[in-house]
Amino acid sequence: MNLSISPKVKKALEEKRPVVALESTIISHGMPYPKNYQTALEVEEIVRENGATPATIAIIGGTIKVGLSAEEIDYLAKTPGVYKVSRRDLPFIVATGKDGATTVSGTMIVAAMAGIKVFATGGIGGVHIEGENTMDISADLTELGQTNVAVVCAGVKSILDIGRTLEYLETLGVPVITYKSSEFPAFFSSKSGYSSPLTTDKIEDIAQTIKTKYHLGLKGGVVIANPIPEEFDFDGEIIGKAIREALSECKEKNITGKEVTPFLLQKIVDITGGKSLESNIALVKNNAKLAAQIAKLL
Amino acid sequence: MNLSISPKVKKALEEKRPVVALESTIISHGMPYPKNYQTALEVEEIVRENGATPATIAIIGGTIKVGLSAEEIDYLAKTPGVYKVSRRDLPFIVATGKDGATTVSGTMIVAAMAGIKVFATGGIGGVHIEGENTMDISADLTELGQTNVAVVCAGVKSILDIGRTLEYLETLGVPVITYKSSEFPAFFSSKSGYSSPLTTDKIEDIAQTIKTKYHLGLKGGVVIANPIPEEFDFDGEIIGKAIREALSECKEKNITGKEVTPFLLQKIVDITGGKSLESNIALVKNNAKLAAQIAKLL
Amino acid sequence: MNLSISPKVKKALEEKRPVVALESTIISHGMPYPKNYQTALEVEEIVRENGATPATIAIIGGTIKVGLSAEEIDYLAKTPGVYKVSRRDLPFIVATGKDGATTVSGTMIVAAMAGIKVFATGGIGGVHIEGENTMDISADLTELGQTNVAVVCAGVKSILDIGRTLEYLETLGVPVITYKSSEFPAFFSSKSGYSSPLTTDKIEDIAQTIKTKYHLGLKGGVVIANPIPEEFDFDGEIIGKAIREALSECKEKNITGKEVTPFLLQKIVDITGGKSLESNIALVKNNAKLAAQIAKLL
Ligand SMILES: [Mn+2]
Ligand SMILES: [Mn+2]
Ligand SMILES: [Mn+2]
Repeated sequence: MNLSISPKVKKALEEKRPVVALESTIISHGMPYPKNYQTALEVEEIVRENGATPATIAIIGGTIKVGLSAEEIDYLAKTPGVYKVSRRDLPFIVATGKDGATTVSGTMIVAAMAGIKVFATGGIGGVHIEGENTMDISADLTELGQTNVAVVCAGVKSILDIGRTLEYLETLGVPVITYKSSEFPAFFSSKSGYSSPLTTDKIEDIAQTIKTKYHLGLKGGVVIANPIPEEFDFDGEIIGKAIREALSECKEKNITGKEVTPFLLQKIVDITGGKSLESNIALVKNNAKLAAQIAKLL
Repeated sequence: MNLSISPKVKKALEEKRPVVALESTIISHGMPYPKNYQTALEVEEIVRENGATPATIAIIGGTIKVGLSAEEIDYLAKTPGVYKVSRRDLPFIVATGKDGATTVSGTMIVAAMAGIKVFATGGIGGVHIEGENTMDISADLTELGQTNVAVVCAGVKSILDIGRTLEYLETLGVPVITYKSSEFPAFFSSKSGYSSPLTTDKIEDIAQTIKTKYHLGLKGGVVIANPIPEEFDFDGEIIGKAIREALSECKEKNITGKEVTPFLLQKIVDITGGKSLESNIALVKNNAKLAAQIAKLL
Repeated sequence: MNLSISPKVKKALEEKRPVVALESTIISHGMPYPKNYQTALEVEEIVRENGATPATIAIIGGTIKVGLSAEEIDYLAKTPGVYKVSRRDLPFIVATGKDGATTVSGTMIVAAMAGIKVFATGGIGGVHIEGENTMDISADLTELGQTNVAVVCAGVKSILDIGRTLEYLETLGVPVITYKSSEFPAFFSSKSGYSSPLTTDKIEDIAQTIKTKYHLGLKGGVVIANPIPEEFDFDGEIIGKAIREALSECKEKNITGKEVTPFLLQKIVDITGGKSLESNIALVKNNAKLAAQIAKLL
């Protein structure tokens, strides 16, 4: 197997101590250098502070790595041209000896291979805006339907179609549990206007659900939605309104297909007054903490 | 395992005698009390009369039950707030010790766990009206694509999109066999205007298909469509026309999303002159009988 | 098991020599007699010339055959009423003892049962034109998401929606590698206007990707897109334009649903000046050759 687990992660897994998987797309494609490098290390530290071992996942020179050194994180953070690796890309990138940063889908696959049950990220992929027409739907959803890893997130990535993503997850039979809210969160905002299919205030319920699921042999993941911390919570109405306006603007200016996402992301940066990076980091850390707390109960 | 199989069902399975699974959503959410209680017992009796052991499935206090006592059926029939349990809900409801009535999806999962191969219900879930836009598609279809249980039904639930549901089942590779008709039935009517992908007049062919499928290791269910008995058969054209008119009315009155289904269901009650409950019971019994006949040949 | 592997194929598999699966829908439903018979034999010969054993797959009298005799191919080529067998049809056709020609989906299933890793065809199924509305999406895509067989093709069948098919394959996590082009081909044309998700000039990379995928336990197929040979390459713009015009014509003439495909296929015959059959044969042979070359490296 082209799978290399770091000594610390291997030891934690062997001793059945809690481990939290972390993705690398956020390092290679999510933030500017050196903010991405610093954040990756800080997120790992939060996992440790909360009693679990972090396992950042990536592919380096065709080897699937579970648990990266600071040097490896630095390499991914500043090297251009690192592939974004989802399920479809994984065997080719490994076979051809390339570097790859794993998406939610790719990270779930590798976490499951390594025996890691919980994974923290910012937001999962979903149905794109107009995805009911374009069929642009993230492979993350397919992965959640089949791979046994619980994913702690602040909802779906900021400019996706939340309602249709929830429908899609229901069709695939994926449990969606929002922690401490009956409303499914909207990444930069704790409010989305959509009820959460399941909700609980107790971390024990979440851990017990994950254990029961695996115990019953029900394949697939669990989405743990963790609303953004209050001090970073943007008014969902303002963001929602801005996105709707930006979508109208797309139609007027005939911005379509793959150009819509970067256009909307820039709008988010504009309306948050540039605070979106800071908020993104805050919610990832918040998720890493919850993931570690869940991992300890598994 | 939080799985409790009743002594009668356990004995039948051990002695390799025919068993038919039955769902509980129809008890908790499908009919008024005490009609739901009486019907559940009558359906079980029909299974017995036709030579098989009934196994009604539900979750009580977090325990998955296969084979309910009359007391347990009565409890589900009159207790408010019992959860509807599909694949996504199952581990949470079990983990948190709640009561749950299983949908087609939930019942298939539990039947497969218990080793039961045939399940009788009224209608399966499917693509909702406008589901190509809303992406509201029942998890029952996903389950049929992956879980090895044959489901005897009178078609899809009455107000779903039959054509798109058949397309979706084809995409997932699910065999759809209509018994004694080349036309796929429409729940309250034996006519839908859609050809059945497969058809046979022989119960032996159905049983042999199920056995061959499992023998070949082809995962997933089989839909056995059993048209409503002739004496209860509503004119499909009248129902179809009424649904189309009701849909126009929805658009006029701006009734959308989750409000459409109850609106259409009420229309069905209106146009059938209130006979829809009686017809619903008749078709479930008809399906229970065919399911028992199939189970005996497996 | 109702599975009969011919002595030559069985011997090749036992000796771990390369084998290439071939489908039979192209024989029964793809070409007129005796062109279909001759082509099937010629394609088998090309597989042999390139160092692999051909295994044409079909169902005859309810027996699943892997490796057909010339007599069996002749029988399928000239017998009317042979079923087209996809995943959903397979158990019924076997159980009832009928004849069936396997589609891409059906052939993948049987190839996987027999332990064959590579399969050559003309084009795979996909999302139909207007499939985002009709939900008419080929079961071939589902199969590619779950069954471990690499499929060498010249793209998707000529009149499908290429862009949405690529989105669907991405969602399912299926690797799509175009050989010697960064553009995904369009069956009769090497150009489609869509970038290929993955590309390589080396057969070794393709083989290594397939081996890595199975080694990592990642279920599902691999699409190897092999552009039509240059001397048969139609101008993609001309074909694309003709299809768009034909689609407008469909709307004007109110041609909808199942009538659209034969209408478009006839248009293809018209605009290619009747050369489409010849081109179809050329690309299938081209794919058989590449499949054999890949199979030798596995
Ligand atoms: Mn996409
Ligand atoms: Mn739904
Ligand atoms: Mn179709």
